[in-house]
Amino acid sequence: MCSSELRRLIARLLVVRGSGHARDSQRRYPRWELTNAELRRLLEAGVGGVILFGGSAEELRLRCSQLQTWAAEPLLLCADVEEGVGQRFEGASWLMPPLAIGRLHGRDPQRAEQLAEQYGRCTGRQARHLGLNWVLGPVCDVNNNPANPVINVRAWGEHPATAGALAAAFVRGCQGEGVLACAKHFPGHGDTSSDSHLELPQIPHNRTRLDAVELPPFKAAIAADVASIMTAHLQLPALDAARPATLSPAVLTDLLRRDLGFAGLVVTDALVMEAITNHYGAGEAAVLAFEAGADLILMPADAEAALDGLEQAVLSGRISRARLQESLDRREHALQRCTPSHNNTLEAVVAELSTVVTPEDLQLAAELVSLSLEQEGIGHLPDGPGLNLIRVDTQLNTPQLPAMAPALLRPAAQGYRALVLDGRSPSPWCDNPEAPLALDRLPPGPVLLQLLVRGNPFRGSAGGDEPWPQVVRQLLSVGRLAGLAVYGSPYLWEQLRVLLPPDLPAAYSPGQMPQAQAQLLSTLGLEAAALEAGFTD
Amino acid sequence: MCSSELRRLIARLLVVRGSGHARDSQRRYPRWELTNAELRRLLEAGVGGVILFGGSAEELRLRCSQLQTWAAEPLLLCADVEEGVGQRFEGASWLMPPLAIGRLHGRDPQRAEQLAEQYGRCTGRQARHLGLNWVLGPVCDVNNNPANPVINVRAWGEHPATAGALAAAFVRGCQGEGVLACAKHFPGHGDTSSDSHLELPQIPHNRTRLDAVELPPFKAAIAADVASIMTAHLQLPALDAARPATLSPAVLTDLLRRDLGFAGLVVTDALVMEAITNHYGAGEAAVLAFEAGADLILMPADAEAALDGLEQAVLSGRISRARLQESLDRREHALQRCTPSHNNTLEAVVAELSTVVTPEDLQLAAELVSLSLEQEGIGHLPDGPGLNLIRVDTQLNTPQLPAMAPALLRPAAQGYRALVLDGRSPSPWCDNPEAPLALDRLPPGPVLLQLLVRGNPFRGSAGGDEPWPQVVRQLLSVGRLAGLAVYGSPYLWEQLRVLLPPDLPAAYSPGQMPQAQAQLLSTLGLEAAALEAGFTD
Repeated sequence: MCSSELRRLIARLLVVRGSGHARDSQRRYPRWELTNAELRRLLEAGVGGVILFGGSAEELRLRCSQLQTWAAEPLLLCADVEEGVGQRFEGASWLMPPLAIGRLHGRDPQRAEQLAEQYGRCTGRQARHLGLNWVLGPVCDVNNNPANPVINVRAWGEHPATAGALAAAFVRGCQGEGVLACAKHFPGHGDTSSDSHLELPQIPHNRTRLDAVELPPFKAAIAADVASIMTAHLQLPALDAARPATLSPAVLTDLLRRDLGFAGLVVTDALVMEAITNHYGAGEAAVLAFEAGADLILMPADAEAALDGLEQAVLSGRISRARLQESLDRREHALQRCTPSHNNTLEAVVAELSTVVTPEDLQLAAELVSLSLEQEGIGHLPDGPGLNLIRVDTQLNTPQLPAMAPALLRPAAQGYRALVLDGRSPSPWCDNPEAPLALDRLPPGPVLLQLLVRGNPFRGSAGGDEPWPQVVRQLLSVGRLAGLAVYGSPYLWEQLRVLLPPDLPAAYSPGQMPQAQAQLLSTLGLEAAALEAGFTD
Repeated sequence: MCSSELRRLIARLLVVRGSGHARDSQRRYPRWELTNAELRRLLEAGVGGVILFGGSAEELRLRCSQLQTWAAEPLLLCADVEEGVGQRFEGASWLMPPLAIGRLHGRDPQRAEQLAEQYGRCTGRQARHLGLNWVLGPVCDVNNNPANPVINVRAWGEHPATAGALAAAFVRGCQGEGVLACAKHFPGHGDTSSDSHLELPQIPHNRTRLDAVELPPFKAAIAADVASIMTAHLQLPALDAARPATLSPAVLTDLLRRDLGFAGLVVTDALVMEAITNHYGAGEAAVLAFEAGADLILMPADAEAALDGLEQAVLSGRISRARLQESLDRREHALQRCTPSHNNTLEAVVAELSTVVTPEDLQLAAELVSLSLEQEGIGHLPDGPGLNLIRVDTQLNTPQLPAMAPALLRPAAQGYRALVLDGRSPSPWCDNPEAPLALDRLPPGPVLLQLLVRGNPFRGSAGGDEPWPQVVRQLLSVGRLAGLAVYGSPYLWEQLRVLLPPDLPAAYSPGQMPQAQAQLLSTLGLEAAALEAGFTD
């Protein structure tokens, strides 16, 4: 084998990042998303996978087709679509966060498992129709730390058995549609209170504890024949004092391959994440991950450097050719499990796209909204004029808050003027810790408080550390709290709902999408406004 | 001819509104955009045109293909892409507003006319590649009233000769690409200070004045063989005391057809606009428009009611069959001028889309940004920490302000924290008219003021009536104004720039898109930030 053939083989094990949008100027994260020229060059050089972010369902379908034409061999095309394909690709189904089903599991485990399997089926089928063959879910982390800033409602459960049963059901559903699933983040990212996108979290647990809490969901996913497992950027000193899990032979080979018997694809989490890039170079990180037991290198900080490093490691004997072949075989085996779409006329693709969301998908999405809605209080929001105070992570390009969002339109129809707060708003806060909201700067009248707060990668607490309990008490003390809606974090909701008088209309949804807003606001007495239509189609 | 055949013929003269997005749930304006079921039913019943809003270039291409499959006959597919197809369909070229070229015309008329023709060519060619065959431009209104809230920088000139020469050049470029153009809003919407989307503006001018100011650009467009002309929702008592222009035989037949000799398609402006719907029903409005001389009825408030009304008018003899046939013939003639795209495999369409923006288009876009940039002051923005105070119409899904906008990233890289004001922000205002900005609520330090303010339909003044001159004086008086950027209205810029000391870095661009921000901020000393890339591809 000549060196260029070797490099081509190694390249198959890389998964680089691209935008789902067609043109370089449309990339939302140009720091991380390769240009088309770079993507094309890497795919022509044999790079075997692309992770895609952004774009609509239509754009994704065309993009996947384009990427495949740039490659000589079948690609792994994946996306972080943990909450339905519509979470990242507009037009596909955007489902309630998994924890909604996790919370149902305590009351009705059988129904919860059915729903998780449907969730996987919906996600897998839509991914396939849009050109993907690999879904980077389910999250198998047990969200047993309410302060976790990054997992939160993305988890399938707060208990190991729940998370395991539901993650396994998701895997069955997704892979039954001919699309690979990916259990993540091994060996468990649930019990952290820092974000590995920003730093390297420490997990103090030993193997006994991991066996009891963190590992059962991964075991369940493996038992369900999950095709791939993604590593976590976490430090577990009890298992490996030197290296984070992603780079640790003790974690990936001894624990995952040997003890848990996983024979599928091991993929790193994004190697560009600060927890890794702050400590290792792009080439050495890829070699260490591969040596530790990973098959696929996701988002190397520098693809050429990763290729250089891996090629040199094989040529020097640091990585054996047999080991390289094992990873290539695992990738090939995984690809053979996939069922690609074969439509190639424009008319057939348009027809396929027009039915990508099925009536069953619509029913699933609606059922998940309904079953996860929690209501407190019995009253209806009084008529305005009033103030509709909305807290959202960011207003810029936020699919949660389109201009026609029910959270805006319905209160407006009842006379509530919207005031939206995000990290770039003029401050609504004053210096009084007991009455932190500067009410003298806000319009008068009853206040509907709507908080869109949940954990999100890269975002820190995104408003969750603001003094909302004090605001609720403050507004109650001046008789101005007219209603409360919490979308996202169940922990914030639990903090707030206990402060409410019994007749105050209030509700919670784990989801933040317009469909969740519509159903929640109906329970507060705010029915569909004139401009709003069609959220369930 | 049986009645159902008659109804089918009449239906060809309707242009209904749909979303460029594929699914009903993705419609941005569900009040005005038909559902897919309604669209399909109307197209199957013979409706002959669709005006599209929203979606990316890729979505539009698939959408146009889908709509055509629902119709038995070739459709007129149009969009309001006055400022390049990318103004409404992301991924295509988003060009400087036409007034940028209008202002060049005084200095270099030949270059300005070349650019306007290239502008038309770029718009027409991209429209064609994306499936459209009709561009609803150029605006032929002479923007001679700086208080005009709706035309503003959309006009090609502030003087009749300029607007006419440039509009005609646009028509030549666009139609040379096999795509129909549309001169609007006849007989001239430039001299109003109210928005016809919200009420019916009055134009007091007589025919002599119209001949001198308003009509020359339309005459120039007609001389350039413009395929269609759109009517204005304006009242001109000197021409017709009873009816707005859209419904006036004196305006459409006597003036436009007879005196100006226009033999092409006359299309109404959207009949749903309040100026019409407040006065006439959907059916009667369509009949009156047709009787007045229109061929095509755009966005009837109720398509079935418009069909009922027109059918009844023909059956009763109020509209003659000959008159109906004239309009059908004009439509057929216009369609024969169009060059559709014939690609129908997915791979060919993907390839076509990947080259829809040509190197010449990129150069045109960049040249228009450069030539329209106005700079005052010579200094560079001082280093932060400081405050980047941005005024924008709305933050919600605003293509002007993506999360990676230069207006956000570049000042951030220099230590300026962004604070974004829109109509839903907590108020930054206090009661002092001489010092209206509540500086005590804002972070300390030097202030970069960035105002994205221009006239936009439905939006009123969008911040243009806020006391920005007083704010500039206030910030200067406390030594905190560090830089000023105005994007959009030249009239606001002219008000503010005269207040500035000569060493204060300040600049103006008629455009608000990220590309305009990037070039403008470079002149203030803010070079490309790390996360930002590829605005010109």
